[in-house]
Formats: sequence, C-alpha cells, structure tokens
Amino acid sequence: MEHHVTRAAEAAAPTSSPMLRQTNLSLVLRHLRDHVSRSRADIAEATGLHRATVSNLVAELLERRLVRETGIEHVGAIGRPRRSVALHGAHVGALGLEINVDYISVHGSDLSGRVLVERRVGFDTMASGPDRSLRRLSRVAREAVEAMKRAGAVPAGLGVAVPGLVDVARGVVTFAPNLDWHDLPLAARLSTALGLSVPVMVDNDANLAALAEHTAGVAAGTPHLVYLTGEVGVGGGIIIDGKLLRGADGFSGEVGHLPVDPGGARCGCGRHGCWETKVGLAALVRMAMPEQPYQPVTDPEERATEIARGLAAGDRRMLAAVAEVGRWLGLGGSIVANLFNPRVIVVGGYFATLAEWLLPHAQAELERLVVAGPAAQCRFTASNFGFGAASRGAASMVINRLIDHPTTIMDPIPRLAAY
Amino acid sequence: MEHHVTRAAEAAAPTSSPMLRQTNLSLVLRHLRDHVSRSRADIAEATGLHRATVSNLVAELLERRLVRETGIEHVGAIGRPRRSVALHGAHVGALGLEINVDYISVHGSDLSGRVLVERRVGFDTMASGPDRSLRRLSRVAREAVEAMKRAGAVPAGLGVAVPGLVDVARGVVTFAPNLDWHDLPLAARLSTALGLSVPVMVDNDANLAALAEHTAGVAAGTPHLVYLTGEVGVGGGIIIDGKLLRGADGFSGEVGHLPVDPGGARCGCGRHGCWETKVGLAALVRMAMPEQPYQPVTDPEERATEIARGLAAGDRRMLAAVAEVGRWLGLGGSIVANLFNPRVIVVGGYFATLAEWLLPHAQAELERLVVAGPAAQCRFTASNFGFGAASRGAASMVINRLIDHPTTIMDPIPRLAAY
Repeated sequence: MEHHVTRAAEAAAPTSSPMLRQTNLSLVLRHLRDHVSRSRADIAEATGLHRATVSNLVAELLERRLVRETGIEHVGAIGRPRRSVALHGAHVGALGLEINVDYISVHGSDLSGRVLVERRVGFDTMASGPDRSLRRLSRVAREAVEAMKRAGAVPAGLGVAVPGLVDVARGVVTFAPNLDWHDLPLAARLSTALGLSVPVMVDNDANLAALAEHTAGVAAGTPHLVYLTGEVGVGGGIIIDGKLLRGADGFSGEVGHLPVDPGGARCGCGRHGCWETKVGLAALVRMAMPEQPYQPVTDPEERATEIARGLAAGDRRMLAAVAEVGRWLGLGGSIVANLFNPRVIVVGGYFATLAEWLLPHAQAELERLVVAGPAAQCRFTASNFGFGAASRGAASMVINRLIDHPTTIMDPIPRLAAY
Repeated sequence: MEHHVTRAAEAAAPTSSPMLRQTNLSLVLRHLRDHVSRSRADIAEATGLHRATVSNLVAELLERRLVRETGIEHVGAIGRPRRSVALHGAHVGALGLEINVDYISVHGSDLSGRVLVERRVGFDTMASGPDRSLRRLSRVAREAVEAMKRAGAVPAGLGVAVPGLVDVARGVVTFAPNLDWHDLPLAARLSTALGLSVPVMVDNDANLAALAEHTAGVAAGTPHLVYLTGEVGVGGGIIIDGKLLRGADGFSGEVGHLPVDPGGARCGCGRHGCWETKVGLAALVRMAMPEQPYQPVTDPEERATEIARGLAAGDRRMLAAVAEVGRWLGLGGSIVANLFNPRVIVVGGYFATLAEWLLPHAQAELERLVVAGPAAQCRFTASNFGFGAASRGAASMVINRLIDHPTTIMDPIPRLAAY
C-alpha cells in the first residue's frame, strides 16, 4: 500500500526508472480491469497520474495491443466527448487448471478474461498417485496451450488449483488429504514437465474459486464474500475488503475440519466430528443412498445429479438427508458469518447442484445461529460456475499477476521512456 | 488505498487543496506513529513526498507541537548527520473508556501514546440499567477529562469500548447481551451528557483490545493477530495484515457464540453449546467452585484471583477444571487458527490471569486440532494489559482518528499553504 503511494508519487517527479514505468503501466491496467471501459481523463483522476503521463502510457499499451479503443463517450449534455479504452491483450493467454479428487479442469482466457478454452476430464487422482497425476495434468495443460495458441493467445502464465494446504510462495502442496499428496513441489515439477518459460503459480482451490466469484460470479464485486467448495472435501475462500485473505502462511479458510461435534464420527483426517463429516458429499451419500456400497465417493458430480433426480421425484429419505446436511451447512455458515461478517456465502460444487433443496434449510439455520441475527444480512447463494470455479480463478490469478508485472508481456528489455 | 495513491501523487503536482494538505500531514504523522523517530529524508522516502514538501510539513507540525526534534542520528560511518523527529502532541489528549459487566475502565494518553490517566472503578452495569450506567460513565469520563487537563492535555476525542455488537458508523450499541443493552445510541448520549464538542466513537471491546495489542502489546506489530477477551463473555478481535477486520457491518470476530457442542448446555443467548458456555468465566467458576451459590459472576477479576490462589496451592478440583476449560479454549483457538491463520492468539481478562495453568492445555489442543498442524505456527500468549486492554485500545482508536484528520487538532481554518 505504502509501496504504491511511493511509486505513484514519484510518477510526477522528475526521476524515472524501469520499475516506476512497470508500476505506472500496472496502475492503468488494474484500473481498466476493475472498470471495464474508461477514458484517459478517468484514469488520470483515479490513479493520480498526470494526464500527459496517462496518455503516454495508454499510447504504449495500445501499440502493444494490451488495451483497445472502445469508442466515444459523451459525458453529460454539454461535456466534451471522451475516447474510452478497455483491457484487450487478445494475444496474451492465461491458463488456469484445477486438479481435484476425480477430475482435471481447464480454463484458458486472454488478458481481458475472454474465454478461449474450457474443458473437464475425469481422472482418479488419489488412485493414480502424484507421478501419474502430474503426467496427466501436464498432458491436459499441453493440449490447452496448443488450443489457446490456435486461438491466437500464447499463455503468459499458468495457475493451478489444488484442494489442500499450499505454500503459495514456493508453489508446494504442503498437504492435500483428499489427493494423498504431501510436500509436493507442484509448480517446479509442472514447469519442468511442460518446458514453458512462463510462471507457474499454485493455490488452494477454495481461494481461487473465491477469486473467480469475486471477479465474475453471482456476487461479483461484493467486498466481503466467502466461498465454500462442496465436494468430497469442503474448503473455504475468504474475500475481505475485496482481497483474498491468506493469513500468516496462506493456510486461512480451512473450514472442512472445524470441530463442530466433539462426539461425532471419525473424519478422514483422524479427528472426530469435523464439519466435513457432516456436509461433505460422502456424508450426504451415506444418508441419502445407504444401499450404495462404494466409499470413497469418486464421482461427485454424477452422484450429486443422481441425488437431484431423487429429490425432484420426492424421495423422502433423500429429502430428509438433504434437510439434515442443510442444517449442518447453516451451522458452519454461522461460524463463518460470526467470524467474518460477510454479506454473501457463495456455495459451489454439489452444494450448488442441490441448492434449491439445501439452501432453505441452511439459510434458516444460519439465521437462527448467527449472533447478530437478521442484522448481519448474510445470505447463502449458489455459484453458477458449476465445478469450474477454481480453474477459472486460477486463470484470474494469472491475469492479476500479469497486470501487476506488465512489462513481462510487453518487451524483454524495458524501455527507459520518460514516465 | 487507491485513495492514498491519488493524494500522494498529487502532492508533487502543482494543484493544491486543504484536503491535500490534510492528507500529507496525515501521511507524515502516520509514518512517525509507526516508526518512533525518523529523519525528514526517511519520511520523504517512505511517503513518496518531495523532500521540500516534507520539510515544510514537519516545520508546521513542529510549530504546532505535534512533533518534536529527537536529536541527531549518524547514518553509517561517513553518512551525513540527520536530525530526527518524533510524534509529540503532549497538549493533545485521547481518552479511552471501557464499560463492562462489573467495571468502568479509563485510559487517557497524549497524541504520542504517553499515559496520563489510568483508572478502573467497580460498577454493576447490568443491575444499574442503561440510564444509570450512562450517568456513571459520564461522571468517570468527566473526572478523567479534568485529570488530563491538569496534566496539560485537552482531550480531542473520546473512544468507548463495549462488550457487544456495535454499529460503529452510528455509534449505537446494537446488542450487548451481558449488559442487557439493546439499540443504545451511546455516542450521541455520552456526547450530550459531557457537553464536549469532540468526536465520541464506540466500538466492540475485543476489537479495541486487539488494536491495543497490535499497537503496544506482547505481540505488537504482528500482522496477523487475534485477541480473545476472557470475561463472563468471550469476544474476539481480529487483525489481518495489520488492520482491524470489521466485516460487512462491523460484526466480525463474534467467537463467544460459536456452536461447538450441539448437545451442550443452554447459553445466556438462548442457543445451546456456545463456546462461551465452555470457556466463559461462569463455566470455570461452576466447575472449579461448585459450592459457590451465586450466579451470574459479577466480579470476574476477584474470582480469577481466587482461582489462581487455589491453583497455586494445588487444588485438584480447580486444576481439573482449568484443564477442561483449557482444552475448550484450544478447540476454539483451532477454529480461529483454521479460518484466519494468525501467528499469535493473545488472550486477555481471566485467561491471562490463569495463563500459566490454562495455556499449556489450550496450546496442546490447538496443535492437535488445527489442520495445518505445526506448520501453522500459531501460539497462545497472555496479554499483559490485564483488564485494561480495551480502554487502552479505545484511546489508540482516538489517536488514529486524530492522525487521519490532523487539521482538527491544528487550527480551525486550514491554511492554504503550497503543499
């Protein structure tokens, strides 16, 4: 924060540097990312840069095709017409991947967020082990890179979402219980396997899904928002004042193993009564379809669809099971609401598939348990990204990084222009 | 944030305004608040303001006695000597108050944080009702104002800490269960009663205690820190990236009524198995001193001291009770750690009084339950502010506000100097 103050202030001073140029280009791009289409005057006002500086920066960004002219806006009846620009970069690709319990998901876009590739392939990650999983992930990534190149966009960065604890700075998956991965240097290994010279970033799936929701989801722009994954495991991503909460080590938002029932069933993690044992898909399947012999659940989406069919047909046992899970979802939601006071809790995965049956129970329980009561105005809402929120968020993470370091997508040697 | 970028950037531009002057003065004061003693060159570098601008601002702040010269620093062996300045304002007072279940606490300081008044008076708030409580609070405040004036500092703002949900923007206590206050317009009523023309601000006690800890406590400066009050009620204040988390409505950090045991005892709030029923002082007293007939607990500090004496003497029943409460403290701490990933959980009130017996159990349970395990590196530590953290934080809140609006403590009509 202080950092930006310094750079922007120097922008108007006589001194200049490649770093300053990078910062100012980034200020302009960031403003356009957050505001769709803006005039140069708007940008100058919002960033605190001089009008002339903004014109120079925009000229260079236009030349590099990172922004485009969007036409003429008339401001007020007698205002002068202003030419607006918007984020472009159709040749700059951002590739997002997610590897989860039973699938690998891909979301490729250009710098402006235009979708180029979207794909999901079934894959049994835990059974495959880390080495085979990495090979499969690399192949899917390579195919996506080729598809994006055919669409005219060369990936300038790659993001991967993983359901587990991630050391974000090193790109290492510390522990992903539902994949059985421990201390896996995913960024380094994927980078080597792909032979790409672009940055590879790794983060938790719920964090990235929260980023996707905040960027373009059902509650986009809501400054205080929590995202809950609804898979075999349950994770949380927290947006506070429009920013992803990471905490001291990047381990924030670990909602799955909240101890909600000290006398409850044993969880996969070895503890008892974790929230995941109440609201994870396995818990629902156990209650809704007790005749199903197979555990663990390896096909969450199919199973959720099957339960949705049963619910639509009025299956009483399924309705009771969903009511029970819904109440536990509301209890966990009340914990989240009491601690973070978000305006919206966006639920994804199977929670979203079954939202029409699940959320009324969850909302009622949330309102009963949250201390501030109705004053907290917190509502559950279903994501409409299906199981694709995390890979979409992984691509958003890449775009954000490119916008923070624009010279990496401009030219290899920063020009020492007088910004 | 963008806001600051704008202002600081304009500082170097030819335009000027009273608002800009305010912002630049504030930049300098904020830097000095966070860094004790700094040279003009340091300030220029950190704020992005021009050297000449900083010299002008510092000259004005010196003239107004809001900063003072602290002597000469030699930077390196051959560096030029630099004259440093520090926050001063010995004539500008900040008054912090806390009203809780059985006491009113006062902390008066000057702008630089030097303590001028510290006092606590016993008072049975719930039995007294809002009107009598307000009269008593006003009297205590008036006495503190007089004492501060005698010490040469006229209070320029007043902060009040309350154990409950506070609508911070309006200064209204929405709901304080342990005081039995509902929708009480505390700021307006106290302001009227005192007849002072300075701002009166109200916030939750745990939030303000967290602020005090982050400003000057045992873990001062730790960017990710959680504070837990240990009184009849239990509240939480959350610091993320050095800033107080408020959430969408200011209702964040409500840890006392986390549902930790669905089959547990009925809580004062009407729900069952709230965390407060496990770790609030009443729970400990019930287990440690079951022969005591009186409930509710109206004298937390005396009771905690009594239990500490018993523990020191090796009272077995008390030791068992403290172990049980310690485990529940660790369980709640694990919820906080899983969601926020703080580096430190500072405990206050009776938790701090009994820390030597309580925290080993709490720490062990935290480490057992937190998902990231030892990697999360979260430790419990006892506050050394006793029961005075919240009133100290209330004074810090006032100081922060004065530093954000420095012209209110400088002169009634902002001078249009060329900053």
